[in-house]
Amino acid sequence: MLAFENDYSEGAHEKVLQRLLETNLEQLPGYGADHYCESAKEKIKEACGCPDADVQFIVGGTQTNQIVISSMLKPCEGVIAAETGHVSTHEAGAIECTGHKVLTLPHEAGKIGADVLDDWLHSFYEDENHEHMVFPGMVYISHPTEYGTLYTKGELAELSAVCSQYGIPLYLDGARLGYGLAAEETDVTLKDVAEYCDVFYIGGTKVGALCGEAVVFTKENMPLHFMTMVKQRGALLAKGRLLGIQFDALFTDDLYSEISRNAIVTADRLKQVLKEKGYEFYIDSPTNQIFVTLENEKMEQLKQNVVFSFWEKKDEDHTVVRFATSWATRMEDVEKLAALL
Amino acid sequence: MLAFENDYSEGAHEKVLQRLLETNLEQLPGYGADHYCESAKEKIKEACGCPDADVQFIVGGTQTNQIVISSMLKPCEGVIAAETGHVSTHEAGAIECTGHKVLTLPHEAGKIGADVLDDWLHSFYEDENHEHMVFPGMVYISHPTEYGTLYTKGELAELSAVCSQYGIPLYLDGARLGYGLAAEETDVTLKDVAEYCDVFYIGGTKVGALCGEAVVFTKENMPLHFMTMVKQRGALLAKGRLLGIQFDALFTDDLYSEISRNAIVTADRLKQVLKEKGYEFYIDSPTNQIFVTLENEKMEQLKQNVVFSFWEKKDEDHTVVRFATSWATRMEDVEKLAALL
Amino acid sequence: MLAFENDYSEGAHEKVLQRLLETNLEQLPGYGADHYCESAKEKIKEACGCPDADVQFIVGGTQTNQIVISSMLKPCEGVIAAETGHVSTHEAGAIECTGHKVLTLPHEAGKIGADVLDDWLHSFYEDENHEHMVFPGMVYISHPTEYGTLYTKGELAELSAVCSQYGIPLYLDGARLGYGLAAEETDVTLKDVAEYCDVFYIGGTKVGALCGEAVVFTKENMPLHFMTMVKQRGALLAKGRLLGIQFDALFTDDLYSEISRNAIVTADRLKQVLKEKGYEFYIDSPTNQIFVTLENEKMEQLKQNVVFSFWEKKDEDHTVVRFATSWATRMEDVEKLAALL
Amino acid sequence: MLAFENDYSEGAHEKVLQRLLETNLEQLPGYGADHYCESAKEKIKEACGCPDADVQFIVGGTQTNQIVISSMLKPCEGVIAAETGHVSTHEAGAIECTGHKVLTLPHEAGKIGADVLDDWLHSFYEDENHEHMVFPGMVYISHPTEYGTLYTKGELAELSAVCSQYGIPLYLDGARLGYGLAAEETDVTLKDVAEYCDVFYIGGTKVGALCGEAVVFTKENMPLHFMTMVKQRGALLAKGRLLGIQFDALFTDDLYSEISRNAIVTADRLKQVLKEKGYEFYIDSPTNQIFVTLENEKMEQLKQNVVFSFWEKKDEDHTVVRFATSWATRMEDVEKLAALL
Repeated sequence: MLAFENDYSEGAHEKVLQRLLETNLEQLPGYGADHYCESAKEKIKEACGCPDADVQFIVGGTQTNQIVISSMLKPCEGVIAAETGHVSTHEAGAIECTGHKVLTLPHEAGKIGADVLDDWLHSFYEDENHEHMVFPGMVYISHPTEYGTLYTKGELAELSAVCSQYGIPLYLDGARLGYGLAAEETDVTLKDVAEYCDVFYIGGTKVGALCGEAVVFTKENMPLHFMTMVKQRGALLAKGRLLGIQFDALFTDDLYSEISRNAIVTADRLKQVLKEKGYEFYIDSPTNQIFVTLENEKMEQLKQNVVFSFWEKKDEDHTVVRFATSWATRMEDVEKLAALL
Repeated sequence: MLAFENDYSEGAHEKVLQRLLETNLEQLPGYGADHYCESAKEKIKEACGCPDADVQFIVGGTQTNQIVISSMLKPCEGVIAAETGHVSTHEAGAIECTGHKVLTLPHEAGKIGADVLDDWLHSFYEDENHEHMVFPGMVYISHPTEYGTLYTKGELAELSAVCSQYGIPLYLDGARLGYGLAAEETDVTLKDVAEYCDVFYIGGTKVGALCGEAVVFTKENMPLHFMTMVKQRGALLAKGRLLGIQFDALFTDDLYSEISRNAIVTADRLKQVLKEKGYEFYIDSPTNQIFVTLENEKMEQLKQNVVFSFWEKKDEDHTVVRFATSWATRMEDVEKLAALL
Repeated sequence: MLAFENDYSEGAHEKVLQRLLETNLEQLPGYGADHYCESAKEKIKEACGCPDADVQFIVGGTQTNQIVISSMLKPCEGVIAAETGHVSTHEAGAIECTGHKVLTLPHEAGKIGADVLDDWLHSFYEDENHEHMVFPGMVYISHPTEYGTLYTKGELAELSAVCSQYGIPLYLDGARLGYGLAAEETDVTLKDVAEYCDVFYIGGTKVGALCGEAVVFTKENMPLHFMTMVKQRGALLAKGRLLGIQFDALFTDDLYSEISRNAIVTADRLKQVLKEKGYEFYIDSPTNQIFVTLENEKMEQLKQNVVFSFWEKKDEDHTVVRFATSWATRMEDVEKLAALL
Repeated sequence: MLAFENDYSEGAHEKVLQRLLETNLEQLPGYGADHYCESAKEKIKEACGCPDADVQFIVGGTQTNQIVISSMLKPCEGVIAAETGHVSTHEAGAIECTGHKVLTLPHEAGKIGADVLDDWLHSFYEDENHEHMVFPGMVYISHPTEYGTLYTKGELAELSAVCSQYGIPLYLDGARLGYGLAAEETDVTLKDVAEYCDVFYIGGTKVGALCGEAVVFTKENMPLHFMTMVKQRGALLAKGRLLGIQFDALFTDDLYSEISRNAIVTADRLKQVLKEKGYEFYIDSPTNQIFVTLENEKMEQLKQNVVFSFWEKKDEDHTVVRFATSWATRMEDVEKLAALL
């Protein structure tokens, strides 16, 4: 079977695994106090161009969203997200579980427009009843979005400006950040992300690690006792080394960028093939997720040899599906898929 | 430096790591739906003598306690624990964070007596005001306890009987279960644990894995939608394989028991040395944690070459410290420590 | 000033207050164990035609919603509501505060259609990813709705059937139930509400009481230890008599129905005047809330003598406002308002 | 039957009820924005000698504790209380329900000693593992305590100093504050309470009101959006007037102090009788709660004519019981009880 179902089908990049192997019997302090965590943090801060950042490692994405959001919101605040945002739709209520509402805005290809945000915030504070409502305490965006789309540098700057005006932090979910930064057509760098966002995370799970996300607080704004809040949410690893060593490897010799590019190169090739063969794209995504409309018959036929994701029914005869590439996708598999399309 | 600080200073047992390496590029479904998870579950059920058990893998111990307890309690219930219980003292309020109180009982060497439990439950229901109080909804014990002590089979049976009488589940925290089962003097087997407990977990983090705990529901009592609750607490790994492959390795050819024995053998040797040299034991622990009273001068001297844990001040001149062995402890290091004592 | 701002501008109906006065120095047991609570419960059960119902008194509406919903949902479940539902918009996140998501459906004049509900539930369970999503655990409707509209008996029956099919309870927020039952054009009786809903509450705060709502569990489905959950949410009154005596008065000699009719009669007169004078209705509401579009100039002029609620901007020159009548509205005030319109 | 069971057996003081009656049909804005709330706040601030205080009215005591504590604590903090503190024992886990642990200290007659507190806080921060524990974020005391005992002015000053040193607020639960201030032997005034505490509440429910507690933030430290948090916890009354009018009456012409004295005078007479008749006091309480040890035979005999509270079994033949007086206790009833003793 050819696997294009998602970007977490394999284990870790070989260099990452290699480092785990090499360091395995080294005796290290627990809970992230080891020197690999320290080294990884330094490398990430440098890559972000943000020497004063605070970097923390957390095991998974939903967990990271839950902890960052709940530790930064005040009790009566909620987090603003696109109605398609991962925190709103596919995290089993992890945010509400911490007592906070997800306040949803209409999206455009998975993105929140700065003007839509501004209007909403303006209306909120204008409403005479707003003290009976959930206060907006943070803006959550994903980049790439759940549709694989990307904000431009200008759009991030505008969102950041609106957030600043209302005194609420901008948080970027970078579960697939590597693929966003590696996209051909983006003008956004990691340094831009660090500049425009108050907090964001660099996804490891979907970009070469067995697990792990690196949260970056960029404005000397890490909540007091953050480590204790991580523990309280059950997310503090005894062997914090597992995350530190992996991120240290990913941020050595630009490995994170390099392996991210593989997802883009293979996705671009796949898109080229799809375009040539006349497939209809559901959305124009510049990253590693490709959404196309298939005739149901074709879809069933492909399923014999390929694993991919159902996205949604288009009509009686057509279905939108998703093909995802990753750091691990082999071009030869793309060509095999191309042959089947 | 000789490391006797805890039982999570190294990475994973080499056979565990080896399996991660061998399977690394295999493309597998996410979220624990892979065949390694399946295989590991089967092996664990067999080891427990409990073919109808439900087994689930969770990343860490505090997380496991939080999820098991909060998913099994009703809203107005709390969990009973020894006042020294990990959930009560060292989990940063992870249980309360889910809305539930930890109801503490006096302990004896870290253990709850069945009679103490029975008396407390009896008094609770006799109290006319009990509807204004937190209802007892579960009993939490750790085995080995935080002091390295062990319940006997008879004690487990008695606790189980009291719990049954009051209709509340008995939950055993097995963060160090391997070391408990491998102790020379125990009469408790894994099958006994499965028989007497309604739910328990087999610790991986402290017994040979990079991370991971295996929760076992023994009485067809796994809460409905448990996986969704795991997700909601941020604990569902995209690469569930990471846990499945490790536990599959640990439960192949009895590896879990075998490596657990190393901790016991090395601890026993260390205890023998300490006894011979006239050190005073703070508590009589049959597992891998050894608590002794040191003269402060001796303690400072040892610190030059050995890492160990401060436990508590005894008096002005003496301190209780903990030495821990593990699956990874080398006998040669014990002998080196012996020479220094 | 003429007060048409809301239906809680006055204290309590004189007969209710009279009973509080008469019973004031009677020494009664606390926490709702007094005979007035008992008597009120019996009268309510009879009025509902539901002798096996469990009735509980709670101080306020948001509190009632919070406690009923959180005590009936399982941890990974959310409550379905219209996107205009009070629990979704104007309760400051009281539901999310208990860890549960409000799952919103599109509304029609504040109502949820049985077909819309059915489609949503069907799609939810069809979605392969639904284990990563919040499970629907209850349906919340308000009757009258936030727009003053009413379900028909047939619509309630259909909603009830869909809920039954999916095994989730139907909960009706009756903050203004009296006004709904007293409406000219409704075919819904209190007995119908009790038949079709699994749980609902009869609003006192907006219908003649100082405070208080009566929750009715109709299907022997009151959660175990409900009183303790009420206490845990801070909602158990030491002087439970305050609620019992008021509801006992409201359900003596049909007082609740009688005073509800006053709101309808005065609202109907006001609607007649508005119609005659050519005002445009924003929505066709058969109860005590009247939504009309005013020219801004007219609105400002009215404000000199009348208190009413801003609802929303219609366009640059027009505004939707709400006039509310209540059990306490005097017809002479309606006529005065009529003269000003 | 003679009622000495508790201090909430009657409704409201006649002057309080009278004001509710007189103002009943006045049309007032909702949610505490009425002029009676305003007036009551001013009177309370003056009585406290604290013109900059923020005063808020909440319906009940457990609710007040829950909201004050949860709105002032950060996510990883708990509240310190005596192990006998109401928040720890008899509030059905209302604090834990908001995600926060109650950290208990040993008590002396219901009180926390400043030295005990200081030692605990010192040890906490000295513990190397304290980042894995719940941080102390507030100190909760009750005055009078659950045993009817009182802090001296000096003791409050010392507690306040320790709290200041560690940067955590001191919160005083004044459910029975009136009775504490009216005690013969106290040197604590309301102004002292306002000076030494960062936040406290003046109990209405047990001192002459139908319901209601007045929270006083004394150090310009009311949490931002406090009203929204009150709403979010379901505690915001639509008819906020109910609380404002009652407290306005209670703080007019020193009514609160005057009616509190009645409880003390009647309790003192009862204590005198008990002393004369040779009864053994369980604890020496200077307020309205009297704890005595009765022979079981005597207890059963008294039960024929008197309602009082069971406190605890002393031994096979003796029981500790509580007699409570209140603002409503009539001296003639005390004399009747005296005759029966």
